[in-house]
Amino acid sequence: MTTTGSTYNQIAGQKVPRLEAISDGVFAIALTLLVLDIKVPMGEAIKTERALFDSLCNLMPKFLSYFLSFMTLGIFWTGHTTQFIYIDKSDRHLNWIVLFFLLFVSLLPFTTAFLSEHIHFKLSVGLYWLNIFLLGLVIYIQWVYAYRHDYISCPEEQKPLINKLIRKRIIIAQTLYALGALLCFINIYLSIIVIILIQLNYALALFSRRRKNSN
Amino acid sequence: MTTTGSTYNQIAGQKVPRLEAISDGVFAIALTLLVLDIKVPMGEAIKTERALFDSLCNLMPKFLSYFLSFMTLGIFWTGHTTQFIYIDKSDRHLNWIVLFFLLFVSLLPFTTAFLSEHIHFKLSVGLYWLNIFLLGLVIYIQWVYAYRHDYISCPEEQKPLINKLIRKRIIIAQTLYALGALLCFINIYLSIIVIILIQLNYALALFSRRRKNSN
Amino acid sequence: MTTTGSTYNQIAGQKVPRLEAISDGVFAIALTLLVLDIKVPMGEAIKTERALFDSLCNLMPKFLSYFLSFMTLGIFWTGHTTQFIYIDKSDRHLNWIVLFFLLFVSLLPFTTAFLSEHIHFKLSVGLYWLNIFLLGLVIYIQWVYAYRHDYISCPEEQKPLINKLIRKRIIIAQTLYALGALLCFINIYLSIIVIILIQLNYALALFSRRRKNSN
Amino acid sequence: MTTTGSTYNQIAGQKVPRLEAISDGVFAIALTLLVLDIKVPMGEAIKTERALFDSLCNLMPKFLSYFLSFMTLGIFWTGHTTQFIYIDKSDRHLNWIVLFFLLFVSLLPFTTAFLSEHIHFKLSVGLYWLNIFLLGLVIYIQWVYAYRHDYISCPEEQKPLINKLIRKRIIIAQTLYALGALLCFINIYLSIIVIILIQLNYALALFSRRRKNSN
Repeated sequence: MTTTGSTYNQIAGQKVPRLEAISDGVFAIALTLLVLDIKVPMGEAIKTERALFDSLCNLMPKFLSYFLSFMTLGIFWTGHTTQFIYIDKSDRHLNWIVLFFLLFVSLLPFTTAFLSEHIHFKLSVGLYWLNIFLLGLVIYIQWVYAYRHDYISCPEEQKPLINKLIRKRIIIAQTLYALGALLCFINIYLSIIVIILIQLNYALALFSRRRKNSN
Repeated sequence: MTTTGSTYNQIAGQKVPRLEAISDGVFAIALTLLVLDIKVPMGEAIKTERALFDSLCNLMPKFLSYFLSFMTLGIFWTGHTTQFIYIDKSDRHLNWIVLFFLLFVSLLPFTTAFLSEHIHFKLSVGLYWLNIFLLGLVIYIQWVYAYRHDYISCPEEQKPLINKLIRKRIIIAQTLYALGALLCFINIYLSIIVIILIQLNYALALFSRRRKNSN
Repeated sequence: MTTTGSTYNQIAGQKVPRLEAISDGVFAIALTLLVLDIKVPMGEAIKTERALFDSLCNLMPKFLSYFLSFMTLGIFWTGHTTQFIYIDKSDRHLNWIVLFFLLFVSLLPFTTAFLSEHIHFKLSVGLYWLNIFLLGLVIYIQWVYAYRHDYISCPEEQKPLINKLIRKRIIIAQTLYALGALLCFINIYLSIIVIILIQLNYALALFSRRRKNSN
Repeated sequence: MTTTGSTYNQIAGQKVPRLEAISDGVFAIALTLLVLDIKVPMGEAIKTERALFDSLCNLMPKFLSYFLSFMTLGIFWTGHTTQFIYIDKSDRHLNWIVLFFLLFVSLLPFTTAFLSEHIHFKLSVGLYWLNIFLLGLVIYIQWVYAYRHDYISCPEEQKPLINKLIRKRIIIAQTLYALGALLCFINIYLSIIVIILIQLNYALALFSRRRKNSN
């Protein structure tokens, strides 16, 4: 199960199931912490069903940014699990690459709250995009590192194809996010809507594409 | 373990144990976050055992809605694990169906707090019911999707029976919840009590039914 | 892996690893949420190292109740894992017994905060004890249920011994807790100290006892 | 899988996968709770992009201590997983050693918040160092205990080397942390920067060292 080298670094960080466990844990918590940013409107001032409904409507930006970030985390979690279908070995460096990935996962509840609080500022969109970009960057490095060190387990002839598919996916998605974020110099809401549409495309539109494939 | 197609979507989201891990994580956090809504009454004003006891009694609605939501999450978690006794394959779409299911799981602490803060409004009951309904809808879609794509692992002759049992269970439960929620047009507290009784039936009454069976 | 009956209840809740996963999740979160009750003293008023040290000392009751509850959760988590060394089958009822156990686990951060906020009241000690008692009661029911339904996996001749050891442990511990809690009618602090000593005995004193055994 | 003794203590705490699961859970939550200390600056007073940028800059100490503690937790998590590559048996005492380790893991969000709130006091640095020291102490005891009781699984001839590597690593790291902490008697910021540099060395500098090795 393990090969022992002569330095501590050669024996550390080799347990892939633990990497998956800590990742699932951090993702699960980040997904759930997001909801803490949606505060229940307090009761004293609210006297009618109508007033309560209005107070709920006022939370819409919070719900939107919650949904946006749930999508973001879902997309990166799916990307993470997809890579780990193939990655079946690890070392100390891959271990730390995953931890840095989780660093940016755990920052997302902050950048999300920052965006929903300051939705009319370019800086908030920029910060949110930066978080997505860093997630994409680290997950790309993770794959390249694992591939170069041959920590990938799949039939040898499929490796180049899988390598190409995973890399291309990240690069195209990140290009779209960057373009979406750049739109904030024209109009901030346009920028956010385009980013949400990109997310939805990755989560949902695939249903239709699949149907086309199977025809 | 995996079959490789020619597009990224065909290789993504196939790891069932990860789906189970992220689900258990989100459920565990949602179950525990619920308690954060029960605030400890602060000490300065409370000078006697009697005053402390009264402050504890004032928290009863919070405890009730906590208990209600713990039941709700327990019921859906049990439903989720029951489906995954049989579901042993996955693809990208099932992956996203589970993530949407978790979206509504992680919203439950919010709708619960909303209900306990505004327990005298029909809107709160409606919102809480909507959350339960969406959980039921997505878990139903999850099963139908998995069944249609033959991701189910059990003896071939038992499949139709299991399919029927799981579908019927969700539909009956959801019908009861909807009827319970509709009662709020007569009386809100009646509506909540009926929903709690339905929950308790699914969690507890089975003990007695089982005893009958084994006689 | 599963035997299929004719009702939904006979197919639900049979996955032991999921029961262990959700339990570890809830315990991990409860263990960590406890610390949120220890608030960092705010900086403006604190101008010297001495003042900061005093503000830290003022947190001592919080640290004590944190430690107390960490012990409590540790003891019950150890008890839970010990039972699940042997329990290797489950059904819907055992599933719900575990969920009720987790209900009381997730309430412990509340009763702990309640105790540390109102440490000079008998009611707080009583509530805290009630939480420990209910944890003990449910974990006892869990074992008895699993044993009676023969969900236990170990060499047949060891079963009665293990059954006796696990039952006796819970009953003795609960008797000691109850006696400790009753002391609050004499003196509340005495009561809390005795409960902490019982906890420490279960966590630590064993070291010395073991050393005696191996001599 | 288990050997049954005549006392409860001999049957308790033997499940290594559960120890790993609860550890991953507590680490995942501690890693993510850290971010709750970074509060989003509120919107009313902020009227320009510039003002928003300034409010973000004011959060820099929070981000730094967040990063510092993420590194700390990452280092100890890696250390923990590395030991558990080899530790494949457990008993009640090892079980409690791991729980005490997790006690200090779950305290880190507090000592981190304490440090970032009172960064100009020696006491904060001292408390933070104490937390790191106790983590190091318990993980050292964990290894020594597991090694002495022969709970280690690896080829017999490699055991002394692995034992030496793991021990040496902890002792050197703890010596560096202690020296770094002592620097606070000269200058507090110097002390913090040195501790961060030690952390970064353990997380990152290894990349370069590895490259040297493979040349």
